[in-house]
Amino acid sequence: MRTYFDCIPCMIRQSLDAVRLITEDESIHEQVLREVLRMTSMADLHQTPPEMGQKIHRLIRQLTEFDDPYREMKKRFNTFALILYPKLKRIVAESLEPLETAVRLAIAGNIIDLGVKSSLKMLDVDKTIEEVLKVELDMSIFVDFKKEASTAKSILYLADNAGEIVFDRILIEQLGPERIKFAVKGGPVINDATMEDVEETGLTDFVRVISNGDDAPGTILRFCTEEFRRCFNEADLIIAKGQGNYESLSEVDKNIFFLLKAKCPVIANHLGCEVGTTVLRRQNNTYSEGITNENKGIFNKVSK
Amino acid sequence: MRTYFDCIPCMIRQSLDAVRLITEDESIHEQVLREVLRMTSMADLHQTPPEMGQKIHRLIRQLTEFDDPYREMKKRFNTFALILYPKLKRIVAESLEPLETAVRLAIAGNIIDLGVKSSLKMLDVDKTIEEVLKVELDMSIFVDFKKEASTAKSILYLADNAGEIVFDRILIEQLGPERIKFAVKGGPVINDATMEDVEETGLTDFVRVISNGDDAPGTILRFCTEEFRRCFNEADLIIAKGQGNYESLSEVDKNIFFLLKAKCPVIANHLGCEVGTTVLRRQNNTYSEGITNENKGIFNKVSK
Repeated sequence: MRTYFDCIPCMIRQSLDAVRLITEDESIHEQVLREVLRMTSMADLHQTPPEMGQKIHRLIRQLTEFDDPYREMKKRFNTFALILYPKLKRIVAESLEPLETAVRLAIAGNIIDLGVKSSLKMLDVDKTIEEVLKVELDMSIFVDFKKEASTAKSILYLADNAGEIVFDRILIEQLGPERIKFAVKGGPVINDATMEDVEETGLTDFVRVISNGDDAPGTILRFCTEEFRRCFNEADLIIAKGQGNYESLSEVDKNIFFLLKAKCPVIANHLGCEVGTTVLRRQNNTYSEGITNENKGIFNKVSK
Repeated sequence: MRTYFDCIPCMIRQSLDAVRLITEDESIHEQVLREVLRMTSMADLHQTPPEMGQKIHRLIRQLTEFDDPYREMKKRFNTFALILYPKLKRIVAESLEPLETAVRLAIAGNIIDLGVKSSLKMLDVDKTIEEVLKVELDMSIFVDFKKEASTAKSILYLADNAGEIVFDRILIEQLGPERIKFAVKGGPVINDATMEDVEETGLTDFVRVISNGDDAPGTILRFCTEEFRRCFNEADLIIAKGQGNYESLSEVDKNIFFLLKAKCPVIANHLGCEVGTTVLRRQNNTYSEGITNENKGIFNKVSK
């Protein structure tokens, strides 16, 4: 997905939100603001939003001199999610369709996204769980997902955020961890999960974790390691969590299921849904990169 | 009032809204977006938002090759307000405190502001009238206003938007038009009222109208004509309508009453009120320009 004009004012607001979370020094806020304005004024808008986000957050880390400014926040979300974990397990155990429930919970976890909303409250997460268990989900896609998941020999699971990864564990437990590689970011960016987060939440003892080798808030294949790209290419099924992965992979011709909360109007418009929608989408894998109709890649009911 | 960091993403969004109202040509949208980003990246943030807005809207007019892109929209709002005029007159006539009611209606008219909200509906105006007649107004300031208005020999009334000027007429009728000079913008900017609008709505036959000679969406004294500045300096009382006039005059040491709807979080914060508040404020005229504490200029209960 390209960067839309409307993404730009939003990115600028987000940059301000982000740097304010890290430091109270207004001169640094101003430096970030001016530099982001300068960068975006010249930016190639054909690049995906995570590519722009990567540059912005590198800049913020550089100017604030913090390698991992959201470390404490990620820790908090990991701890919070671990506290919720027994409850999540119970919800799945008591469910008539445990895989569907686990998919729903994995999407609910995607509310933990500081990239979009800097003021997320723990309460929002609890509320989102309740909602996501009840909302309508495209069942024809879930049926496809279930079928693909039952036959896939290798599954690549692209993580999104710290905390959220505990919700992902719930889904991985249903799928069986043996066939799964769980991919995290190669370096800190916003509250995206890195190796530290999977270790902190004990996921490394449970599923094979790999790093994608890059610090974009999404998956920009050409920046990822060769090892990651090999996993990506060889996987029978890819589960991609969150907006950043959707933005960066919506035009990649692979067997991808996107699980996310649509948190911004541009994404919602691109997906053809309302802001706040619980999204389970399948990549239209007849899509070839470069074809002009941007929405061609995203149909609800295309099966392989 | 200086331009706050949070004004910048909002200005960029507004620029996009503005150019989209004028043309569907996306290449022009992109040109405007990039140029506004470039301009703001280097902007002097000590200048007031209307100074930035002036540059942005000159750019939009230049790139779209429209001298007065909002002409049709302004005409529509003028016509709409003229249709409402008998109703507004009746409301005042039936009121126990006609001056207070006229002040309230003049503020209600300030909802007609395409600078902040491009999607204003006629219905919103009707709803705002009902609301503004009922909301709490700072009565100590109204008492001051009434007293000042009764003794002032010369009143300068700074108009804001087309359509809104018909609401201003209601207040001018209560004050008596003889002592009043009604000032409009010297050239088109957004939907701000110009000489064409006062002629279209018949105000020129009723009150003495002057142009400020400038096309900023506010009143930037050093850009205005000498004649206007003389009127400004000599006036016993200045009535300044709308956000743009507040932003550009909040630190000018004169006997100014600001009448506006607080339509954005930055202004609301600067005024110490909620977004949407019906504001009647008096300039603290012990203020001297250049003093650091920005809020020093704006106290509710300071009298001369």
